[in-house]
Amino acid sequence: MSKHIRNFGTMRYEINGIRREFVGDIYHTLMRSSWGRLLLAAFGLYVTTALFFAVLLAFGQDNVSGAKDTLDLFWFSIQSLSTIGYGNMHPNTPWAHFIVLMESFLGMVQGALVTAVLFAKFSRPKARVAFAEQAVLLESQGEQYLQIRFANARGYPIVNGKITLSAIIAREEEHVGMNRRMIELPLLQTEIPFFGLSFTATHRLADGIFAGMTLEEMHKDLFLLVISFNGVDEILQQEVRAQHFYRPEYMLEHVRYKSMVEAHDWGAAMDLQNLSSIIAENKEEAVESIVQQMEGNT
Amino acid sequence: MSKHIRNFGTMRYEINGIRREFVGDIYHTLMRSSWGRLLLAAFGLYVTTALFFAVLLAFGQDNVSGAKDTLDLFWFSIQSLSTIGYGNMHPNTPWAHFIVLMESFLGMVQGALVTAVLFAKFSRPKARVAFAEQAVLLESQGEQYLQIRFANARGYPIVNGKITLSAIIAREEEHVGMNRRMIELPLLQTEIPFFGLSFTATHRLADGIFAGMTLEEMHKDLFLLVISFNGVDEILQQEVRAQHFYRPEYMLEHVRYKSMVEAHDWGAAMDLQNLSSIIAENKEEAVESIVQQMEGNT
Amino acid sequence: MSKHIRNFGTMRYEINGIRREFVGDIYHTLMRSSWGRLLLAAFGLYVTTALFFAVLLAFGQDNVSGAKDTLDLFWFSIQSLSTIGYGNMHPNTPWAHFIVLMESFLGMVQGALVTAVLFAKFSRPKARVAFAEQAVLLESQGEQYLQIRFANARGYPIVNGKITLSAIIAREEEHVGMNRRMIELPLLQTEIPFFGLSFTATHRLADGIFAGMTLEEMHKDLFLLVISFNGVDEILQQEVRAQHFYRPEYMLEHVRYKSMVEAHDWGAAMDLQNLSSIIAENKEEAVESIVQQMEGNT
Amino acid sequence: MSKHIRNFGTMRYEINGIRREFVGDIYHTLMRSSWGRLLLAAFGLYVTTALFFAVLLAFGQDNVSGAKDTLDLFWFSIQSLSTIGYGNMHPNTPWAHFIVLMESFLGMVQGALVTAVLFAKFSRPKARVAFAEQAVLLESQGEQYLQIRFANARGYPIVNGKITLSAIIAREEEHVGMNRRMIELPLLQTEIPFFGLSFTATHRLADGIFAGMTLEEMHKDLFLLVISFNGVDEILQQEVRAQHFYRPEYMLEHVRYKSMVEAHDWGAAMDLQNLSSIIAENKEEAVESIVQQMEGNT
Repeated sequence: MSKHIRNFGTMRYEINGIRREFVGDIYHTLMRSSWGRLLLAAFGLYVTTALFFAVLLAFGQDNVSGAKDTLDLFWFSIQSLSTIGYGNMHPNTPWAHFIVLMESFLGMVQGALVTAVLFAKFSRPKARVAFAEQAVLLESQGEQYLQIRFANARGYPIVNGKITLSAIIAREEEHVGMNRRMIELPLLQTEIPFFGLSFTATHRLADGIFAGMTLEEMHKDLFLLVISFNGVDEILQQEVRAQHFYRPEYMLEHVRYKSMVEAHDWGAAMDLQNLSSIIAENKEEAVESIVQQMEGNT
Repeated sequence: MSKHIRNFGTMRYEINGIRREFVGDIYHTLMRSSWGRLLLAAFGLYVTTALFFAVLLAFGQDNVSGAKDTLDLFWFSIQSLSTIGYGNMHPNTPWAHFIVLMESFLGMVQGALVTAVLFAKFSRPKARVAFAEQAVLLESQGEQYLQIRFANARGYPIVNGKITLSAIIAREEEHVGMNRRMIELPLLQTEIPFFGLSFTATHRLADGIFAGMTLEEMHKDLFLLVISFNGVDEILQQEVRAQHFYRPEYMLEHVRYKSMVEAHDWGAAMDLQNLSSIIAENKEEAVESIVQQMEGNT
Repeated sequence: MSKHIRNFGTMRYEINGIRREFVGDIYHTLMRSSWGRLLLAAFGLYVTTALFFAVLLAFGQDNVSGAKDTLDLFWFSIQSLSTIGYGNMHPNTPWAHFIVLMESFLGMVQGALVTAVLFAKFSRPKARVAFAEQAVLLESQGEQYLQIRFANARGYPIVNGKITLSAIIAREEEHVGMNRRMIELPLLQTEIPFFGLSFTATHRLADGIFAGMTLEEMHKDLFLLVISFNGVDEILQQEVRAQHFYRPEYMLEHVRYKSMVEAHDWGAAMDLQNLSSIIAENKEEAVESIVQQMEGNT
Repeated sequence: MSKHIRNFGTMRYEINGIRREFVGDIYHTLMRSSWGRLLLAAFGLYVTTALFFAVLLAFGQDNVSGAKDTLDLFWFSIQSLSTIGYGNMHPNTPWAHFIVLMESFLGMVQGALVTAVLFAKFSRPKARVAFAEQAVLLESQGEQYLQIRFANARGYPIVNGKITLSAIIAREEEHVGMNRRMIELPLLQTEIPFFGLSFTATHRLADGIFAGMTLEEMHKDLFLLVISFNGVDEILQQEVRAQHFYRPEYMLEHVRYKSMVEAHDWGAAMDLQNLSSIIAENKEEAVESIVQQMEGNT
């Protein structure tokens, strides 16, 4: 039983005992393989099919009038599978006619499946949502807030947006008996009816499991922060999704995001370069915090 | 009026009085039939169509120049339906030309519908979520919990996951006047923003209709436990679903699931073989419980 | 500005001032037109396109070698549009070659659009949910309940089901200034994780705007009851929906639904014939109520 | 790094630093380009492909028997790409046969992708929901209400409708550190199970951030009102969405919407012309308010 490795961002998963299910998985496999691979596979299928029928045509005497040699049988097979049918070569015997019948039908089915996969892969909606590199912890009026900023990196509106922020906690919770638990961190605002530019998800620490903790204390239990966004791309009229993970070392304190959007009466201007720009609330504390992140990076 | 039988897992349904609705049901019927059947049906349609037009071509004198006999009319029909058109045979009379017109149009429509069904069937998203064979009842700090564990058996992340657990109760509820009722069992956590490996759905008995009941008492009313999961496959960007049913005899007490995921700082390792592995909280009680399950199985 | 009539069940809508938007509406129009109409339109488009290019081919001297007369130009055009290309007729001049270039491209586009519409129409999921003809009002332990029963008339499971019941009230509500208002009637259970057979939606009158009203009083304001169901067909893995409207006169009192499902330990048996079967709680009252419905029907 | 401009209704967005992602964006780009552009692009691709293979066929001696000159190679390439294959020209050398193999395969792939885009664009559901030009602020029984009316401008029912109303506030909120914030304005009714004609979304000012404010005070902070509607078109069985933005100057006080729907016992009649018709509660105040709007318009 082979071991399967999956990598998500900075995480690595090892999975034992995955059962292969050919039919059940082929579509999934095709969808996750690269365009190059996909086209290669389609091409392989195309040539193999033609070859297969060419071989069948080699049985018996001149099945194909106009075919001078065996190679011509393959070219004829291609002409039939593609439904070009120039006609300088054409079926000459019932057997050849039957081959053509089968091959043209298979050509249709093959075309349908290739179209299906190319279509599904090509029209799969991709969100262009960019997340700030770091989550920030800041204090205001005695309250502590955890913030994560993200931006619409395509600039076309996403409507009916929803955000959720969760913490994956590695603490052993006796009564639930699982060694990792995902706990939602309530946000001040979870719905974004119209997401045009940027948004900063804000969690008041007092509302969640980190109530009154210091960054150090949070590090103990916290395995990963997960922020999920989904909404409807107005152009595609399809749902798009984006997700970002923050390792604890990517949480900075004593800093805040530098504003990246200027409101004007004619609308607003956004600079994506500033997405991850932060400014210190207090110099030396901030320095510390950045250093800490550097260590996190290495 | 025929009796229709449907089987879901361990359940069997008998339904009387289903009205056939050809157009309304044909797509549904095709979608639930096997690939073999589907392709056979498509092939049958293909050949029948060709045959039908071949028969029409048999009316009148040499409609098709190059056709030596009636069989050739069928081969010609195939060449036209598939749009190969070698040309050694070609329409010779207005009638034949008209047949070709109709046949090529029908070929297009047929191709579209075959593509539609093959596409829809092929690109139908399949979740690979595996559920533990048994639900477990355990006690912790004086509280009773019902747990069901399931795993992502494909290992590619499913996002925006949601779980619901319900009990189908066979008790006659006088004022509602129905003899079976589905009642939700609230879970400690119902949303899984990121489902990468495994999850254990946990219901505190005190929160639901089984508050303070023993397993024996639960057996009286309980007909079936239904756990439903749905989320979005990140690769397919399509919603996937999974469901599992537990007959009362598949609920064990005094046991807990053996951990199947190890957290590491580089990520985590999961062993799918252990999905249904349970460990006893207390020997002889557990034995009882397993025996009870054995009986359930027979 | 023409007046548009729309009919939904027993209701009729008259709408003034609908603006036609060709491009915006053509897809919608095609989707709601019958299969016959749709195919006729596709056929018309197909022939017209061929005709159009045949006319273009009539300009200049023998563009198409092998074409004996003008009619042949049309047949040649069909052979090119369908990509059959027998070859006994073939383009002979740059102009003819250019026509073929344009026609083959248009053929591809046309094929794509026809496939699109046929596909979308054919694969549009249809729920087979049957609703009881009448809603029933019954009393139990001093509480009044409004019930509506519906059944899965296909017998294949629908998961993640949701129900909502609303009342359209014709009362003039001064501060909202609208003459019709849709008010939700809370149900005892709104989620059906697994809808295999039948379900009876139950609203406790005390929970809604009809609290403590008699059927007569309800008739004053009530314009229509609307019950909506949506869920995911497990076979299609697509969302399906169903809706039913009840005019006040289709609400019966002093009756209850006759049970249509028998639970067995091997599963359950349902008889769709009994979907609308009702039994009286009390003879003469029930008779009254039925009579009342009869009047409603005429 | 170029500056990108996006316009939504009366708003203009300027975005810096958008990174181009060819593969990631091509589908999105195609979906938002006009039909004319899309077809032109497809046509360009079609001709270019044929040209490319024609050039390859120019290498070596008479690869294509029947081709009198180089131009014929292009026409032959078209006949192969379109799979017409008249046959008066046909491949004569292994190299030519190989070109045909490649070209027919590419033709299939190209057809699939063109179909994908045309299909996705053509079958993209479009809601026909019309919104009143102005939002109205009215008082009733001492309560203040903000109302926005919208109508189903196609007249075919939309089910499972949901509405959300939000205010984009430009106020600087210190602790959140963002200069624009979207705040939901709770509605008296947010669900429309059946949207057949018109609906007036109603927000009680007392329930939201504008509690007790005058129109003038609201103008200070308010940047934009956003109303979002989504539901399922019963004909298409697809989700449709609509959104409308109101600049503060499009909010009128002391007026109410003129009724546009008459209820009849046979159903109802709606006049779309009256969607934006308003009537004054009190003459001179209304006049003021209208004047104010006029200024807003200029």
